[in-house]
Amino acid sequence: MANNQKEECIFCKIITGEIPCYKIYENKFILAFLDVNPISDGHTLVIPKKHYENVLDCEDKYLEETIKAIKIITNHYKKNLKCTAFNIANNSGKDAGQVVNHLHFHIIPRYKNDGLISWPTRNCECEKLSDLCNKLSLIHKK
Amino acid sequence: MANNQKEECIFCKIITGEIPCYKIYENKFILAFLDVNPISDGHTLVIPKKHYENVLDCEDKYLEETIKAIKIITNHYKKNLKCTAFNIANNSGKDAGQVVNHLHFHIIPRYKNDGLISWPTRNCECEKLSDLCNKLSLIHKK
Repeated sequence: MANNQKEECIFCKIITGEIPCYKIYENKFILAFLDVNPISDGHTLVIPKKHYENVLDCEDKYLEETIKAIKIITNHYKKNLKCTAFNIANNSGKDAGQVVNHLHFHIIPRYKNDGLISWPTRNCECEKLSDLCNKLSLIHKK
Repeated sequence: MANNQKEECIFCKIITGEIPCYKIYENKFILAFLDVNPISDGHTLVIPKKHYENVLDCEDKYLEETIKAIKIITNHYKKNLKCTAFNIANNSGKDAGQVVNHLHFHIIPRYKNDGLISWPTRNCECEKLSDLCNKLSLIHKK
């Protein structure tokens, strides 16, 4: 197993070919394959070929290649599946639902009236937003 | 309003300053601000300063800058909020829940036992995956 990969990582084993996958797209940096527990038809995972845990620790180059691969694949699916839209999702960290600790983006093709519901919406909490912005803004700190 | 922006787009109006926002981060390509209907504390939107509808039509350069901004902001929040993880999400197209037709990525900070549930999981549909892969793979078509 190359230095780029991590011994116990299931996605690294997919990259090396030790575990098979339904491969959709590949280049020097990226691998994309069908999720075996699909939320919708064509549910695809896009991963960097180098082991990173999530978005926070991933090198810029691999992040760039990941998002470009997502663009290529969604355009390809729009032509070749009957999907009309896409959810693109990444869970970074266990408390966000990340199960495999190798950075992966989900491409979830959506179909008219497919009944899927993603995130709940909430009412405006304007009183809190201003405080939070003052605390967090990287602009104000310049 | 510059050529980069679209007259009737609410996010383009935020970019020009016509509509105010709780600004978190900004550079030549990208603007990030707090979502006024937050799913969790620190819920942030990251948008390109040029009007694109979604991931499918966005120029590579702006996609790259978007994902790099997401990395900067999540690392910043990890230090300065009590969040332990992040969901990163984009809805591309109305049938995926896109409401504002200007490309935007959600950064949803997650907190231990916050009770949020994102996507449902499904059982393996292996019999379909092989057919789908044969139909869709960009590898096989090389």
